[in-house]
Amino acid sequence: MRSADRAAETSWSARECELLAVTLQLLQEHGYDRLTLEAVATTARASKATLYRRWPTKAELVLAAFVEGTRENKVEPDTGTLRGDLISLGESICAHVNTHASTIRAVLVETSRIAELDAMMHEQFLDERKAFMTHVLARAVERGEISANAITEDLWDVLPGYLIYRTVLTGRSPGPQTVAHLVDDVLLPSLTRHA
Amino acid sequence: MRSADRAAETSWSARECELLAVTLQLLQEHGYDRLTLEAVATTARASKATLYRRWPTKAELVLAAFVEGTRENKVEPDTGTLRGDLISLGESICAHVNTHASTIRAVLVETSRIAELDAMMHEQFLDERKAFMTHVLARAVERGEISANAITEDLWDVLPGYLIYRTVLTGRSPGPQTVAHLVDDVLLPSLTRHA
Repeated sequence: MRSADRAAETSWSARECELLAVTLQLLQEHGYDRLTLEAVATTARASKATLYRRWPTKAELVLAAFVEGTRENKVEPDTGTLRGDLISLGESICAHVNTHASTIRAVLVETSRIAELDAMMHEQFLDERKAFMTHVLARAVERGEISANAITEDLWDVLPGYLIYRTVLTGRSPGPQTVAHLVDDVLLPSLTRHA
Repeated sequence: MRSADRAAETSWSARECELLAVTLQLLQEHGYDRLTLEAVATTARASKATLYRRWPTKAELVLAAFVEGTRENKVEPDTGTLRGDLISLGESICAHVNTHASTIRAVLVETSRIAELDAMMHEQFLDERKAFMTHVLARAVERGEISANAITEDLWDVLPGYLIYRTVLTGRSPGPQTVAHLVDDVLLPSLTRHA
């Protein structure tokens, strides 16, 4: 059921998904600057025209590959407790962001230059993260673990935000222990403050 | 007293501080990509040789200018309450980061490429932020507002981290209301959880 949901969400054909997987692989090996559309085409045995038709610029190709890559991490947690769900969400964010820190840095510079890329980043990446967190919190409200007014539109993203900050901006890459501290010492005291 | 402290902390001469101020000004006007050392030299009526001697690359010059620029925001808060200090710290971080978001993005890419720049970013920027937060929390412990074990080495930077993430990665730039929510709904429930 879940993998069917995920397949339905992607807007790419099977062949396009292959091209994006190759792009992500080459990004991890060589970094953003040294990635070329030529290398992607050669490795994937595709024509450059095929690539350019879908993704006219390197930035668009890389952002699409990054967003598509997050799909693998997109198994929505449903452990039965708020703590379990937050830990699971946090650990999957860490794993993904640690792997792709240099890509995220490069994409950030591109998204600040190009409005369409920025919109794509928001719709396909940040909005999906938000939907995940919203579901996790809504289930905790249903179970009576937290009060509905513990959730604010302003601060829904403290968990992903802090973990991404740690990886991308400080080099103090967070692991499972940081996730556990963040959930137990910061998020749960905050979310249960009305309980 | 405080301005004397600040003057003592800077490692630049008065003339060098002028050059860095011009750099920061041009960065805000034109962005990282379009900034040239020539333009800095011309605007500051300096020779290019003077600039290159101190800062051999554009990335080094820009990082130095950014770090020096934070010095102006570096009046350590001492409002008499933990809440007051955290709000003051958060608002000054927002003001600085909102102004320099595009510079931070550009510097991030450079610091991930060049180890010396990364070390400079840590020593001169992140470590100073940490010292500030440590003082604010230590005073709150002295006043009996929080327990000493509320402070963890791992999570000292949730306040600056989340605010920087919001500005640099999401475009949802935080203002005073976000700072107040973060302090009242997240940080204080976390820091006072042992009280």
